[in-house]
Amino acid sequence: MPHIVVRGIKPEQMCTISTPLVEELAVICDCGTDNCTIDCLHTTSVFDGKIVDTYPFIEVAWFERGLETRDRFAKAVAKQVRSLGIKEVEIAFKTYREDSYYLNGERCFDK
Amino acid sequence: MPHIVVRGIKPEQMCTISTPLVEELAVICDCGTDNCTIDCLHTTSVFDGKIVDTYPFIEVAWFERGLETRDRFAKAVAKQVRSLGIKEVEIAFKTYREDSYYLNGERCFDK
Amino acid sequence: MPHIVVRGIKPEQMCTISTPLVEELAVICDCGTDNCTIDCLHTTSVFDGKIVDTYPFIEVAWFERGLETRDRFAKAVAKQVRSLGIKEVEIAFKTYREDSYYLNGERCFDK
Repeated sequence: MPHIVVRGIKPEQMCTISTPLVEELAVICDCGTDNCTIDCLHTTSVFDGKIVDTYPFIEVAWFERGLETRDRFAKAVAKQVRSLGIKEVEIAFKTYREDSYYLNGERCFDK
Repeated sequence: MPHIVVRGIKPEQMCTISTPLVEELAVICDCGTDNCTIDCLHTTSVFDGKIVDTYPFIEVAWFERGLETRDRFAKAVAKQVRSLGIKEVEIAFKTYREDSYYLNGERCFDK
Repeated sequence: MPHIVVRGIKPEQMCTISTPLVEELAVICDCGTDNCTIDCLHTTSVFDGKIVDTYPFIEVAWFERGLETRDRFAKAVAKQVRSLGIKEVEIAFKTYREDSYYLNGERCFDK
């Protein structure tokens, strides 16, 4: 965690920003860079009867870290994505409950 | 928003219903048709030791709009999907929190 | 329901464990085996400037069933996945609200 799940941005594009992005996010989240995953979903989008480019959208799955951290995280992601020449990107955060997260079948948090 | 995320229905099939579907949903949600995205996820499903067709499933990601709007939205989606000859489709709604949604790194809602 | 949505494990691998896994989960959830779907998402992941293998991650989408059932469910999934020689797998549960779930446009639960 956090998991960065991407739609509408090519893996090759995400590659070029992955190192600075993950370094920045690790500082913001106060975690190791290897806690961060970037997964690009393969999608085909449609609109008005045609196949169209997928709208650039990133869903961040993580544990709740509060508004200030979230704001900084979103800014960092958007800055990096827009440095690719992508004009618009939407980002939504979804939270997992800590008592609903398991590593190798064991609950990660005992709270 | 809303985002319509599709599993188990081909993009070519979604194409043929995309225009009337999005027009109907825009009325139900009182928003522009271009707020609606339809993304088909590429998936491979398995059951009982074999690769099988993915069960038709649609996850709607949006902000909470209440039971009545949700009921009308689900009915509209199901009617259009079933017009494709698909006999069964399940639809689940997942809500994003308004304070956790960002456009270009800025929170969309200040509440 | 439950929906088992997989990243980073090949469909061919999930095939080989699908029968015993679903049988075990059906007992844990006290439901029919055909209520369980296993969908593998096609993804491409990046890290440190390179395309990398996707980290094995399973998101279980279901209705809340409580801690004890969740623990048993996670243990069963992890045991089967690790029997494939996969050393680490993370599992997160996400809950749908019962009043936000529809079959063919009709709410499944009237609560």
